[in-house]
Amino acid sequence: MAQPRVTLRDVAHRVGVHPSTVSRVLNPATRSMVTPEIARRVEAAADALGYRPNPIAYGLKTNRSLTVGVVIPDLTDPLFPPMIRGIEDALARVGYTAIVANTDNDRAREQVILERMRSRRVDALILGSTQREDVLGDDDVPVVLINRSIDAGGATAVVSDNAGGIRQVVDHLVSLGHRHIAHVAGPQFLTTGIARYEAFLSVMAGHGLTVDPDLVTFGQSYGRDEGRHGLSRLLAVGKRFTAAVAANDLLALGCYDALRADGLRCPEDVSVTGFNDMPLVDMMAPPLTTVRIPHYDMGAEAARAVLERLNGAADEAATVVLPSTLIVRGSTAPPL
Amino acid sequence: MAQPRVTLRDVAHRVGVHPSTVSRVLNPATRSMVTPEIARRVEAAADALGYRPNPIAYGLKTNRSLTVGVVIPDLTDPLFPPMIRGIEDALARVGYTAIVANTDNDRAREQVILERMRSRRVDALILGSTQREDVLGDDDVPVVLINRSIDAGGATAVVSDNAGGIRQVVDHLVSLGHRHIAHVAGPQFLTTGIARYEAFLSVMAGHGLTVDPDLVTFGQSYGRDEGRHGLSRLLAVGKRFTAAVAANDLLALGCYDALRADGLRCPEDVSVTGFNDMPLVDMMAPPLTTVRIPHYDMGAEAARAVLERLNGAADEAATVVLPSTLIVRGSTAPPL
Repeated sequence: MAQPRVTLRDVAHRVGVHPSTVSRVLNPATRSMVTPEIARRVEAAADALGYRPNPIAYGLKTNRSLTVGVVIPDLTDPLFPPMIRGIEDALARVGYTAIVANTDNDRAREQVILERMRSRRVDALILGSTQREDVLGDDDVPVVLINRSIDAGGATAVVSDNAGGIRQVVDHLVSLGHRHIAHVAGPQFLTTGIARYEAFLSVMAGHGLTVDPDLVTFGQSYGRDEGRHGLSRLLAVGKRFTAAVAANDLLALGCYDALRADGLRCPEDVSVTGFNDMPLVDMMAPPLTTVRIPHYDMGAEAARAVLERLNGAADEAATVVLPSTLIVRGSTAPPL
Repeated sequence: MAQPRVTLRDVAHRVGVHPSTVSRVLNPATRSMVTPEIARRVEAAADALGYRPNPIAYGLKTNRSLTVGVVIPDLTDPLFPPMIRGIEDALARVGYTAIVANTDNDRAREQVILERMRSRRVDALILGSTQREDVLGDDDVPVVLINRSIDAGGATAVVSDNAGGIRQVVDHLVSLGHRHIAHVAGPQFLTTGIARYEAFLSVMAGHGLTVDPDLVTFGQSYGRDEGRHGLSRLLAVGKRFTAAVAANDLLALGCYDALRADGLRCPEDVSVTGFNDMPLVDMMAPPLTTVRIPHYDMGAEAARAVLERLNGAADEAATVVLPSTLIVRGSTAPPL
């Protein structure tokens, strides 16, 4: 706790620049005055040395609270903690702190949280809890959306490539020989749920495969229980399918539960895929084939977008789509 | 979003009491004026109907921010989200909101977070990040510790039964026939790490078993990587052991990694146990034998302790110890 504090001067010395250059890079309001190459080297050195700007002095000068509110729909979904970490690290580099609140998918609780955060004077908000029909009010607090977006547009959002991820999943299953593929879809009032469902329909059609409406079920949330109930319903229909594409990892783990309850094996009887590559799915029985989205980078990108807005340097509202990657593990195999 | 708001009157009608009774129960400052039996029925009805007090009016009257800061050491440890949910639910019932911040085990970041939370005027703090040597300052913001405590005492803390959990683990392994048992201990600057290590020593001695210092390793954190490195070191020593007691679940999962890297099987070659029963360990290969601690209840209990302090109704500082339960799954078996 009593280590000597790393100074601006230490960082400047390591990079071989003047301390004022380091100061410019680490202040969002002046960063654009420095070339990107130098800025990157300064940030790397600041990280390596563990340098932290003195936020109190900065806050006093600028009348900012130096806090960014982060609103998450379900903190028990392991998807979010690495995303939050990406946000925190990017904010900490310029002396900002994230405060997180969890709506638990409760709209009333969400409203209270937003009121409290605004009255606590957060400088900006990063929202992971928006639904498709939400509209962002006119507000002097900058807002950036993460993971989910809104139908109306006009918002800055950092999302993963939903369609690309589902395309890779379906291509993989088809290449293994699957023709009868079920879909355990996510909530259709969320952009992730609708985007993945529509991608499923379109990629299946591209392969000349029929989507049987009896083999599609829609979760009311993204939880493990919803996945179990959903796949159990599909199994009860009695129509043949050899693979199930789940709209996220927790739904996929619920599919494992449903198969086990029916005495079926994964992947021998039914292959299962997820979406998110959340922590620990590599250790499941079987390890889950899923779509990796860059959680940490999405968080860092959202933080960067917020800082740009605080800096007044942001362009028009833009959607940043980060790439998705198929990760093949033990839950998919050729149909028997 | 535009559902009719449930009123105090609705709750009173359901329970069959006067609205002012409901009001008293849901206000921490007056709750003690109502019998516990009635209070429980009012809370149950408020939950069932989804009643939320109007926090803005209350905050204006009392000059409180109605927010409680919750400081967590590592949000990527799945132990914490259910604990936070317990805190949030108990706070929401009386119109309070939790705002969470993650120190990422970084003491400098923790100091900044605490400063920001105080300057944002949180009404109270729940700290999960304390180290043994920490001392709570004289402060008009009530503080309750969760999961970890401090050596100095004088703080209100809600913890799990560390010693009882380790006793059950070691008793279970000994009853399976294990005699050579390793310990992948947690950080010794945390009360959980030292309490579990000391319990391991004492319970082993109680069984007349020797603890070989070469078969004990200490993690610098509670992460999966630390578990892998720790058990790899013990395996490299070359002394025989048939079971490893890890100080938490993430360390135990790191032990899985180390065994796999060495071509060893769990539980056939080495039994492994964890601590916490964090979400999803029932789905691992193999499912983890571990100690269940009541995460959600610990959160709810910490929130209750905070509300009592805000209410001025708290007694002396007290440590609340919630029970731990052994959950036997597939990662433990008799030695070959």
